[in-house]
Amino acid sequence: MTVAVLSGGVGGARFVRGLVEVVGAADTGVIGNVGDDVDVLGLHVSPDLDSLLYALAGLADDERGWGRAGETWSTLATLRELGGEAWFALGDHDLALHLVRTQALRAGEPLSSVTSRLAAALGVETRLLPATDDRLRTWVDTPAGPFAFQEWFVARGHRDSVDGVRFEGAKEALPAPGTLELLAGADVLLLAPSNPYISIAPILAVRGLRGALAARSVPCVAVSPLISGRAVKGPADRMLERLAGGTSPRHVAACYEGLIDALVVDEADAGDLDGLGDVRPIVAQTLMRDADARRRLAEAALGAVVA
Amino acid sequence: MTVAVLSGGVGGARFVRGLVEVVGAADTGVIGNVGDDVDVLGLHVSPDLDSLLYALAGLADDERGWGRAGETWSTLATLRELGGEAWFALGDHDLALHLVRTQALRAGEPLSSVTSRLAAALGVETRLLPATDDRLRTWVDTPAGPFAFQEWFVARGHRDSVDGVRFEGAKEALPAPGTLELLAGADVLLLAPSNPYISIAPILAVRGLRGALAARSVPCVAVSPLISGRAVKGPADRMLERLAGGTSPRHVAACYEGLIDALVVDEADAGDLDGLGDVRPIVAQTLMRDADARRRLAEAALGAVVA
Repeated sequence: MTVAVLSGGVGGARFVRGLVEVVGAADTGVIGNVGDDVDVLGLHVSPDLDSLLYALAGLADDERGWGRAGETWSTLATLRELGGEAWFALGDHDLALHLVRTQALRAGEPLSSVTSRLAAALGVETRLLPATDDRLRTWVDTPAGPFAFQEWFVARGHRDSVDGVRFEGAKEALPAPGTLELLAGADVLLLAPSNPYISIAPILAVRGLRGALAARSVPCVAVSPLISGRAVKGPADRMLERLAGGTSPRHVAACYEGLIDALVVDEADAGDLDGLGDVRPIVAQTLMRDADARRRLAEAALGAVVA
Repeated sequence: MTVAVLSGGVGGARFVRGLVEVVGAADTGVIGNVGDDVDVLGLHVSPDLDSLLYALAGLADDERGWGRAGETWSTLATLRELGGEAWFALGDHDLALHLVRTQALRAGEPLSSVTSRLAAALGVETRLLPATDDRLRTWVDTPAGPFAFQEWFVARGHRDSVDGVRFEGAKEALPAPGTLELLAGADVLLLAPSNPYISIAPILAVRGLRGALAARSVPCVAVSPLISGRAVKGPADRMLERLAGGTSPRHVAACYEGLIDALVVDEADAGDLDGLGDVRPIVAQTLMRDADARRRLAEAALGAVVA
């Protein structure tokens, strides 16, 4: 069985890691969000691709929840001394990746190719593809005005309510090489437990990718990022409340209307399954405390298909 | 008394540090070589300006002889893992400076302005100027072919004999703002104990700077980088042997023909002072073992003027 999964960063990356352990690296393909890519210090940073890469390479810092384990922060400390751009915390090890990627992109190498090279260098066998090689940037509209994604998320600590999300460049962006083939060839499609609006939607905004999901001939299963209406981390719950009118499973499912056949929800939400329509609910433990929990969640999502 | 000094990197920087202790930061101005600037990982690295900056800020690693004290090497280690450009050793703290500078240069800020900002951020009060804001790059011709400076110096360990030195961009390069004023306003001009061919010559290659020295109305004193015909560090002795025909004080003085009034030579060379012509020899201990030695050498160079 081959699986294609659409994923954002940290939470999605954790799920993908469990998925690979269940399905195997060779049979898993990941399409990662690039809407939150950002230029820091002139470097091209791809936070979601990197979270996926570090998770798949076994290098992720599970305690901090982002970045690399064993990271050091010398450059950042000196950046602060020098009055440099220090609002986006880049670790010393992490920086090496951004330097290599930026140099390659400036030399004309596509993001998908650099990503594939970096994955190989880190011993990652799972296929990891950016949604697009073109420039796609998420913007959020808030009562305080519009913000580039990372300005809202990191610099302002995502405290502003979100009235809307836009994807700059989405009209022109083409699916990265391999993405359509991955979706067409998979036996199952999965949407990781990422934020529907700012992690999955920017992937679906790329011309052809939403269509590929809508026209699927195999099952597509989403995993809800909410437990009892709360996000494990990040602003997903507040965004759903404001943009979808609630945080029940049906509100999550509504984000993926026409795209999914089943939704994995947490046991805590088992009593709130009304209004799902054609979407079949799968109840499971969705909190990924450890490797076992990650694997069980992946099995539950895949079980939805074979059941 | 105000002093203007032309300097390369490590050895020159050590001398400049002693000079500032003797003359005072406010009355010392430094013009640094940029011919060995290099692009590494897409970053603009200015090794000589940085050696001067770190020396003046008290941040230089005296034991290693280059870079910052207390440096860490996380990024470099990861660059190697990722197959990135790792031939030029950039420390994590050092990287912060290159990132800030490169970002500013890309935004259109001149090198002299960035340098001045970085100096201020590090608490350096001595005026530090690049020879030029324009692109100037040293090339060496060797029996193995021509090499960009750092390729010859670092990547090939300066093992190739040098048949000639050229300065790409010298015809178009203009003196950086403040350099001509510094030279015109100083009571003494000094050439630090740097390599004449690859540290001082690229400064003099900038249009107007050699002329300003030649037309000086105040004394100009050079400090020889050789002791008993040997360089303390680097290829100066081999270069003088091949390009000037010897390593005696007169060969060093010949590198600066028409530009200097006195040459500070080491006590070890006191018996080899023939052929200096109009250049007055000043015998001193030139090895800068410690802070005292640095100050005494600066005093000797300045003493040549008032004597």
